Amino acid sequence: MAQRAYELLVQKFQEIADINGISAIVGWDQQVNIPHKGHELRARHLERLAGIRHKLMTDPALGELFEKVDAESAELNDNELRNVQQMRRSWKLANKLPKELVERKAREETIAHEIWVNARAKKDFGLFAPKLETLLEISKEEAKYLAEPNQSLYDALIDSNFEQGASEAYYRVILGDVKETLVPLVRKIKESGKQPDQSFLKSRDYDPEIQKRLGKAIVTDLGFDWDCGRLDTAVHPFCTGAGAQDVRITTRYFRNWPIGSLFGIIHEAGHGMYEQGLPTEYYGTPLSEAVSMGVHESQSRFWENIIGRSKWFWKGQWRRLKDHYPEQLWDVSFDQWYFAINKVEPSFIRVEADECTYDLHILLRFELEADLFAGKISVSDLPREWNKKVEEYLGLTVTNDAEGVLQDVHWSAALFGYFPSYSLGNIIAGQLWAAVKRDIPSIELQLEAGQMKEILQWLRERIHRYGQRYSRDELVLRATGKPLSASDYLQYLQTKFGELYGV
Amino acid sequence: MAQRAYELLVQKFQEIADINGISAIVGWDQQVNIPHKGHELRARHLERLAGIRHKLMTDPALGELFEKVDAESAELNDNELRNVQQMRRSWKLANKLPKELVERKAREETIAHEIWVNARAKKDFGLFAPKLETLLEISKEEAKYLAEPNQSLYDALIDSNFEQGASEAYYRVILGDVKETLVPLVRKIKESGKQPDQSFLKSRDYDPEIQKRLGKAIVTDLGFDWDCGRLDTAVHPFCTGAGAQDVRITTRYFRNWPIGSLFGIIHEAGHGMYEQGLPTEYYGTPLSEAVSMGVHESQSRFWENIIGRSKWFWKGQWRRLKDHYPEQLWDVSFDQWYFAINKVEPSFIRVEADECTYDLHILLRFELEADLFAGKISVSDLPREWNKKVEEYLGLTVTNDAEGVLQDVHWSAALFGYFPSYSLGNIIAGQLWAAVKRDIPSIELQLEAGQMKEILQWLRERIHRYGQRYSRDELVLRATGKPLSASDYLQYLQTKFGELYGV
Repeated sequence: MAQRAYELLVQKFQEIADINGISAIVGWDQQVNIPHKGHELRARHLERLAGIRHKLMTDPALGELFEKVDAESAELNDNELRNVQQMRRSWKLANKLPKELVERKAREETIAHEIWVNARAKKDFGLFAPKLETLLEISKEEAKYLAEPNQSLYDALIDSNFEQGASEAYYRVILGDVKETLVPLVRKIKESGKQPDQSFLKSRDYDPEIQKRLGKAIVTDLGFDWDCGRLDTAVHPFCTGAGAQDVRITTRYFRNWPIGSLFGIIHEAGHGMYEQGLPTEYYGTPLSEAVSMGVHESQSRFWENIIGRSKWFWKGQWRRLKDHYPEQLWDVSFDQWYFAINKVEPSFIRVEADECTYDLHILLRFELEADLFAGKISVSDLPREWNKKVEEYLGLTVTNDAEGVLQDVHWSAALFGYFPSYSLGNIIAGQLWAAVKRDIPSIELQLEAGQMKEILQWLRERIHRYGQRYSRDELVLRATGKPLSASDYLQYLQTKFGELYGV
Repeated sequence: MAQRAYELLVQKFQEIADINGISAIVGWDQQVNIPHKGHELRARHLERLAGIRHKLMTDPALGELFEKVDAESAELNDNELRNVQQMRRSWKLANKLPKELVERKAREETIAHEIWVNARAKKDFGLFAPKLETLLEISKEEAKYLAEPNQSLYDALIDSNFEQGASEAYYRVILGDVKETLVPLVRKIKESGKQPDQSFLKSRDYDPEIQKRLGKAIVTDLGFDWDCGRLDTAVHPFCTGAGAQDVRITTRYFRNWPIGSLFGIIHEAGHGMYEQGLPTEYYGTPLSEAVSMGVHESQSRFWENIIGRSKWFWKGQWRRLKDHYPEQLWDVSFDQWYFAINKVEPSFIRVEADECTYDLHILLRFELEADLFAGKISVSDLPREWNKKVEEYLGLTVTNDAEGVLQDVHWSAALFGYFPSYSLGNIIAGQLWAAVKRDIPSIELQLEAGQMKEILQWLRERIHRYGQRYSRDELVLRATGKPLSASDYLQYLQTKFGELYGV
């Protein structure tokens, strides 16, 4: 009786979760299965579902329930109180934006995407700049609706859309540390003149079927649950799903680059195992949902890089690797393999960047976005500023916009404030790894013996099962015993790559 | 301006069509892709979508539009008037049933399905009878809501749920002719003592990958459009989709029965090509939808049996067949193959029945249903009555309920009135074939030459493009120049099997 408003609220959010789950499945189907001419129809479907979701989220009855639930607060337990808090947050955010703005933004994004594709193909930022200007203005408009008192526009976007509780200042501190360590580290690596041979990866033929088999075998051992998920092929690798029992990951296969699918599968399985570990008893509510994009990314990068590119892991998987590629890798030693999959080399394209340079790509985007929103630079300055930072952080000279300011899809989708979450993910992953090693002293030996289950157990226990029970920062603090900071991550990188490159 | 109510009506129906399309895709996904533990979640999704559809269909605003549209009728063209008529029909039907009854029926069906599965496994009709009694009572209740004045309960179910405009009397006439011809034909075939050798199908190994390749190659040539459809594997073969541009068929493969998937793919592609041929300009409204279950089935059976099991077709496909199965069929002659795929033999199980005996299985179900609804027999009489008819029509003695009254899923899903549509499909297919031969005198020669496109063209022109523009009977009349009757179909069967069995 006392719980009625809370339970009705949960029911409403479960309805919305059903619609989200349905959207996820038909969206997945669109990437994986849809026949060529089915896209127009599917766009209708997705729009219809978005309309239904919007209607549910802006239903006045929901507002009334939020009023009623306050009167019950004395009778709610801590989990329920937190759930109400987070439900209220997402409800408020959804109701802050006028429908007209949401629809206008969606329309402009669709147009901008095509223009961006064309501009990138022609390597000409000038073609894209006017549309980017429009999107920036719309995003500022959006940010004004979203902003709390005294919150800057950029902070409003970061906090509301991507990373609750984060801000430009928060990222300045964290990414400042990253910059201070990585810029010199990358320079030293470059100056070392030492580089692995990757020719056995690029010049030999790796059957996609075998790539798939190996990837599946590995993530099965990591703990991905095939009773609650599947792996398919798609042009753009991703992870989606309808809930913990139906998680779908995708990858793509290149015959002359087997580690693309290999680390891709591990990465997406990292996202997937987080989803599979979220508590089903809170289905449809924040307690059953990922706490933030950064934490989600910490899971994928943890498995992909910290585990998947470690020497302990490959010692444990060495026989399996050779069994899958007996002819391709017959003359490749462990050291050659380990170095080859950990090659560090400054490059232009973020999505192809290695562990050491990746965050520098993020850093420069973050700094440019912050300057744009602060009015320190304008859209037309972007190519020049971009190229300056690439020179400064990576030591490279950009020769055209396609390998520079036009490379990412994000700005064409008005995703301002999104990039730093990627680095936050790396940083959290590094901190989790330090804690895992502290809590499981034998972990490296276990990996060498091919035993991997205990890591997932640890993550389930410390991260996954909480959903949004705690904020990102509190979750990391509880899991690792330390406030979130970049120090463990940077130390991990320095140790690993210092050893590899002798710097 | 004048069209406003009509256009708003169309919009409402398109919303409903979107929901139906989404349901079809997630339903397909459930059969084809879903991970083991995802079913519970998916059941939620489908229930949610059913709720949304019901809400849209019972929205009072819809009723108001139907009132308004009448005032516009002078300004609507014939297509639009027909569309309004059929929209009104489905709206009325959806609003006739109380929500309580719909939900109770769904619940009872779920329970009944499990009980039926168990009863069938134990071959004991007594276990299922009480539940069947319940379903029969619910269906009668439903029929009372659906029935027009002076319409019998069984007629109400047939007309409302499966075959608009059909009735028990209508079927008695048509199926009466079928019975009169087929019972003696089947007897003569049995007495001929002649039977083909099917051992090369059952005792040799047919790679499922090759089965799939052959099936796809054939239906590609028949005209199935892969830009608007796909083929997948599922336990129960079916055809579904979200509209003409996204049609999905499934099949299953048996290593020792290659013609299962072969004719299965052709059958489902027949359904699929009908869907692909429906006019997209009327998306979401009856003019873009199949006219009836019987006409749908006429398409699948036409391609599967009349074309797919004809000697002309196999003459044209002979080299392709041998190319796909060079080792399995090296010693099989054309005559052996043609006879083997057209074996007629009375058997217990409907879904395994051949072209000549299939309708006798339907006939007995129809007669039993009619007697049940007329109160001439009761549920407990069913096994005895069933077995009596099997003896009479097929000359076989049923030895247990699993091969008799318990074999079909339909009654456990309260699908009373559904069966006769299957035979209607066969009958229409036969009549269409006679018309095709009249309109395209060279059609048999074309098939022998492997040319098949002209048939689909004919069907597109005469059947598919009309959607529900005409009633089933008028559509058949227009397409063939004759009122719908079983005579062409029966003559086709007598000629084909008379020749094969020398009777």
